[in-house]
Amino acid sequence: MNVDGVPYRSIWRDDDGAVRIIDQTVLPYRFETPALDRLEDAARAIAEMRVRGAPLIGATAAYGLALALRDGGSDDHLATARRVLLATRPTAVNLRWALDRVAAAVGAVPPGERAAAAFREADEIADEDVERNRRIGEAGLKLIRDAAARKPGGAPVHVLTHCNAGWLATVDRGTATAPIYQAHDAGIPVHVWVDETRPRNQGASLTAWELAHHGVPHTVIADNAGGHLMRKGRVDLCLVGTDRTTATGDVANKIGTYLKALAARDTGVPFYVAAPSSSIDWTLDDGAEIPIEERSGDEVRWMTGEDAAGVVRTVRVVPERSDVANPAFDVTPAALVTGLITERGVVAATREALARAFPEAAG
Amino acid sequence: MNVDGVPYRSIWRDDDGAVRIIDQTVLPYRFETPALDRLEDAARAIAEMRVRGAPLIGATAAYGLALALRDGGSDDHLATARRVLLATRPTAVNLRWALDRVAAAVGAVPPGERAAAAFREADEIADEDVERNRRIGEAGLKLIRDAAARKPGGAPVHVLTHCNAGWLATVDRGTATAPIYQAHDAGIPVHVWVDETRPRNQGASLTAWELAHHGVPHTVIADNAGGHLMRKGRVDLCLVGTDRTTATGDVANKIGTYLKALAARDTGVPFYVAAPSSSIDWTLDDGAEIPIEERSGDEVRWMTGEDAAGVVRTVRVVPERSDVANPAFDVTPAALVTGLITERGVVAATREALARAFPEAAG
Repeated sequence: MNVDGVPYRSIWRDDDGAVRIIDQTVLPYRFETPALDRLEDAARAIAEMRVRGAPLIGATAAYGLALALRDGGSDDHLATARRVLLATRPTAVNLRWALDRVAAAVGAVPPGERAAAAFREADEIADEDVERNRRIGEAGLKLIRDAAARKPGGAPVHVLTHCNAGWLATVDRGTATAPIYQAHDAGIPVHVWVDETRPRNQGASLTAWELAHHGVPHTVIADNAGGHLMRKGRVDLCLVGTDRTTATGDVANKIGTYLKALAARDTGVPFYVAAPSSSIDWTLDDGAEIPIEERSGDEVRWMTGEDAAGVVRTVRVVPERSDVANPAFDVTPAALVTGLITERGVVAATREALARAFPEAAG
Repeated sequence: MNVDGVPYRSIWRDDDGAVRIIDQTVLPYRFETPALDRLEDAARAIAEMRVRGAPLIGATAAYGLALALRDGGSDDHLATARRVLLATRPTAVNLRWALDRVAAAVGAVPPGERAAAAFREADEIADEDVERNRRIGEAGLKLIRDAAARKPGGAPVHVLTHCNAGWLATVDRGTATAPIYQAHDAGIPVHVWVDETRPRNQGASLTAWELAHHGVPHTVIADNAGGHLMRKGRVDLCLVGTDRTTATGDVANKIGTYLKALAARDTGVPFYVAAPSSSIDWTLDDGAEIPIEERSGDEVRWMTGEDAAGVVRTVRVVPERSDVANPAFDVTPAALVTGLITERGVVAATREALARAFPEAAG
């Protein structure tokens, strides 16, 4: 998508062959595109959430493995690099998937050629992500178009989203945002309620930033507000991403997603999850089995913003002697999900429907 | 309640007869107890939200009228002082109620004795609030005690609360916090999950401060986290306040309350609302009739905290070109409320039960 008129992906190889990312920890205040030179840079970028979002984590891990292999192509080195990258974030299934895929692609290649093969595979993973999101966008576009057709003359379709399943969370287009961008570009009036998404504020910092730069009308709200808006009939559909989806359609996504799904069911608002097949963990039958990352309480304690003079500052918003807990994800049971928007169309959140849509993976 | 071992109320008369408050605009960063010397001080304290919470606003207005009468006891002076105080927060129903009550108490008193009579009435209003909250605490204590009895050997009862219905919002004890303090003081192990409560952070700023200073174990969480904790069995009961309760038991409370009530129902966690009879609007049959205040988007855009050097700063956390919406309350339908904890015990959230408990008011 565009940043000040210039098309970007969230990870790319520049003309010198360097891997570059957009540092998402300094958005929306600064736009920086540091290079990742070595395995450690990639691992740190994932762990420190300079890149985040399951698909982008996967692509970054793939490039990270390629960077590692550039420093040595032995099996031992490959195994160590995989371990280092796998340890960066526990919940995202794309991480393991991307690492497995690159490892498989280089397995039969002589050590001296492994780096090049890994880069080719990482490029392919990135390109496939963009194409998958285009398809998700097409499937979701139909839902927004149908919602628009039910609205009185030209009234916008109000979509509520949580966190950032936007293009910054993927290589491009995003998952949950792909239908929104496609609808907006097709001239369908669409307006997005953007959950702030405490504690890391990915909604206010990233989704709002993305939408503003693409010109999509949107309104930032406290995470507490969405239920009220649904009760008041001011939300036409919810559209969120997923970090991991079970074979039965349970969805692990950013903490707070479950609360919005409950409100959607209670108020009759459709609740859709943009779920690329790469997010589906076919080994899991129950969302309760998904490990939920407990992140540092400092994410709740400290908040970063820009003061009136434009200086970025971090302030403490929780009293010093109070404990803090910070579970990063929750699980929305399949029963609350109206449909999973996949690259093969909208699929019911059931084992049967998922297996029909992805027979080769469901096994 | 206690502030580091010293018992405090949120408003009191010191040994010199001066009215003192805790300045809640500088909490949790500084603990300041300015004196209110004159009518203007009381009016400013209410208008600038140095005191907040309906019961405390009422008590402060009562003392404000007494302070005014100390400067002159004429009917004209009384009428002017009432007007000044009423204009501070024109929608707060306790404000008018307290002013009417003090005015009635001094009406038949000679001008020279009116100040003393007004102070006596203000003291009584304050004492009655504390007594009402003590009764709410007693009724709620039984719920916590019962929950404790169901826990394996000495495990704490985990209570989730939203916003601040604490002693700082009342004269003492609080409404939702009254059972918690009573349980803690009775030696029942209790631990409180404190919702941050965006956008104004009353949970993190005030409830956490209160609990810390009274020594009650607690953990601050993002508003998004409560549903996950309930699913994981880590919440034994929810306990919140109310800004207005309909005759049928619908509850208007701080934005986000409804989402926690939905999660509580979905996970089988009891959801209680501390509802003094003064919060019940007997003229309303449906929560949808309760007007929901839309507050300034700046409350979402800007956040105040203390930087690492201890300087209190305000930072912007929403991109400049993004719109913001800020509904301040939502309505939790009675069907989601396990019980209303009133000064007459725990009452079902139904028209019939409320009318039985308060026959003189239900009419």
